[in-house]
Amino acid sequence: MNQKRVENVLRRLEARGLSQIMISDPYSIFYLTGRYIDPGERFFALYLSSDGNHRLFINNLFTVPEDLGVMKIRFSDSQDAAALFCGYVDHDAVLGVDKNLPARFLLRMMELNAAKDYVNASDCVDLVRSCKDEQERERMREASRLNDLAMGRFLDLVKPGVTEEEAALQMGPIYRSLGAEGYSFEPLVAFGRNAADGHHAPDGTPLREGDCVLFDVGCRKDGYCSDMTRTFFFRRASERSRQVYEIVRKANEAAEEAVRPGVRFCDIDKAARGVIERAGFGPNFTHRLGHSIGLEVHEPGDVSGSHSDPVQPGMTFSIEPGVYLEGEVGVRIEDLVLVTETGCEILNRFPKTLKMIG
Amino acid sequence: MNQKRVENVLRRLEARGLSQIMISDPYSIFYLTGRYIDPGERFFALYLSSDGNHRLFINNLFTVPEDLGVMKIRFSDSQDAAALFCGYVDHDAVLGVDKNLPARFLLRMMELNAAKDYVNASDCVDLVRSCKDEQERERMREASRLNDLAMGRFLDLVKPGVTEEEAALQMGPIYRSLGAEGYSFEPLVAFGRNAADGHHAPDGTPLREGDCVLFDVGCRKDGYCSDMTRTFFFRRASERSRQVYEIVRKANEAAEEAVRPGVRFCDIDKAARGVIERAGFGPNFTHRLGHSIGLEVHEPGDVSGSHSDPVQPGMTFSIEPGVYLEGEVGVRIEDLVLVTETGCEILNRFPKTLKMIG
Repeated sequence: MNQKRVENVLRRLEARGLSQIMISDPYSIFYLTGRYIDPGERFFALYLSSDGNHRLFINNLFTVPEDLGVMKIRFSDSQDAAALFCGYVDHDAVLGVDKNLPARFLLRMMELNAAKDYVNASDCVDLVRSCKDEQERERMREASRLNDLAMGRFLDLVKPGVTEEEAALQMGPIYRSLGAEGYSFEPLVAFGRNAADGHHAPDGTPLREGDCVLFDVGCRKDGYCSDMTRTFFFRRASERSRQVYEIVRKANEAAEEAVRPGVRFCDIDKAARGVIERAGFGPNFTHRLGHSIGLEVHEPGDVSGSHSDPVQPGMTFSIEPGVYLEGEVGVRIEDLVLVTETGCEILNRFPKTLKMIG
Repeated sequence: MNQKRVENVLRRLEARGLSQIMISDPYSIFYLTGRYIDPGERFFALYLSSDGNHRLFINNLFTVPEDLGVMKIRFSDSQDAAALFCGYVDHDAVLGVDKNLPARFLLRMMELNAAKDYVNASDCVDLVRSCKDEQERERMREASRLNDLAMGRFLDLVKPGVTEEEAALQMGPIYRSLGAEGYSFEPLVAFGRNAADGHHAPDGTPLREGDCVLFDVGCRKDGYCSDMTRTFFFRRASERSRQVYEIVRKANEAAEEAVRPGVRFCDIDKAARGVIERAGFGPNFTHRLGHSIGLEVHEPGDVSGSHSDPVQPGMTFSIEPGVYLEGEVGVRIEDLVLVTETGCEILNRFPKTLKMIG
């Protein structure tokens, strides 16, 4: 167990007037114990209590190191794990639970009167996770460094007639050859008008001269995610495409310049959106500016107009403005940023100047 | 909406004394409406009521056909969707909910007194889904037919020195070239002693003479999953490997012969396990015999010693006995079967006789 992280969670728990929490998110359990397990449909929970009697409830099928720093409560598939868990809960106190705890466990615990009441207390963990510590910052930098290197290699995949799907399939081996564990999400490769479709997945569309080439890609390294988008043009770009590209690039840069501790997420969104709106493309920027990222590619904490919390040192999120002209072209430019004590560190160094390839 | 399937769910609901259910599993919603949507963290639910006032609650971000046959209730990201949903629930009746409904929605609904009480009613949908109708049976056959064809092509990947990972990476394009949508699960490729490790994932292990070559693979076609395992040997096999292979093959065949309506899942497991136990390898068959399959690669309904329900026509599940000798060799042979009115149809036709390759 990482005692410092556990203490931070307990402090937030106390601030909410809670004395116990059941953490079931596998990434949150990894964050606190250093061990990642995908339990599938099986019961898996870390119980933290203000009295220090923490327990990890884990099926016999899964192996964890002996010296995990938390007492393990083991059970088999034939046991009622939720009932077993209830035996360790303070029945006279409210129990904080994970936002994603499946109803089959929560209803069973309620049936057994496990606690006085139940509240969604995920924010006690999520807010701690959102501010990356030194080890995590280093891992976020490394994942994005590999992503920058990979983007350079992906340019070689761009050849006349290649399909989106063919290009996407070659990305996995490239990431692995660079030392990444694999994708942080399935790569998005979109050519030409497909780049303007928010729901597009790589298909058999072949590359043609004048197409934009949008790569929205990321890898995972030591558990941490990268995520970057670059938009290139194959051999030539129309005047309108160039204009749109420059607007998106300015929006990206304006938002990144706005990032520093205390600035609200919504104001960072506004910094990018303002550039695009003033250029007359407001309705073509159809999504939030970004999302938080870390052990998961999407973590709680939107960079959007409806999120008015201030950013804090250690937060990592994406800045990804886009302009989409239906049936014609789509441009998105995305970096990850890490909020520092005085401003921000842009984790992606791959150039953003307009680039013709092929 | 598929009215017949909806009626079957309502009938089971009635048998449990329930008048309303909130279905949130995206595959169950696909099963009933014909439309698959991955809502991510967003609220997405199909409400079915015995009075026929069914409703689909869906975020504005997702597109569905106009003529879906169910009234759509739309909302945006800035709305409290769970609260909106509560306005349509019969507050004086118990509400059946999905086993996986996240706590953040369930607790919010409870806070708003959406219903008189809440029960896990997933079985009302899962038991209907477990018996495949004619259209589904055809799709299950087709997915396994493609898997048989793919297995033949995978043999070409087996070359001296090839690594597990290199072989696995080439399987996706082969599936797609055969017309599948993609994997039903990440392919498992294991050489030699790696095949004896239940937690193994394809890595850089190179193929060597005498290794067993275990392929546990499946694709998705028209939404339905295939799943098959074959174990080959590269150029030669030790006497012990051959012996183990024949035991596993006999276990596989004994179980398949036992499948007919009315036979209990546990007795099918026993038919295979008995063969392996009598040969003295009982402790080396470390898992259940199989799992149900359909729209998801693992559906409720284990083929195991602890599941004593009888199988019924239309059920589809895997038969996958294995013997694992740590540090030496692992053999597993898996087919999918479809229970018919009189016995069973084995969906995989790829030969199971001991085969040397390379």
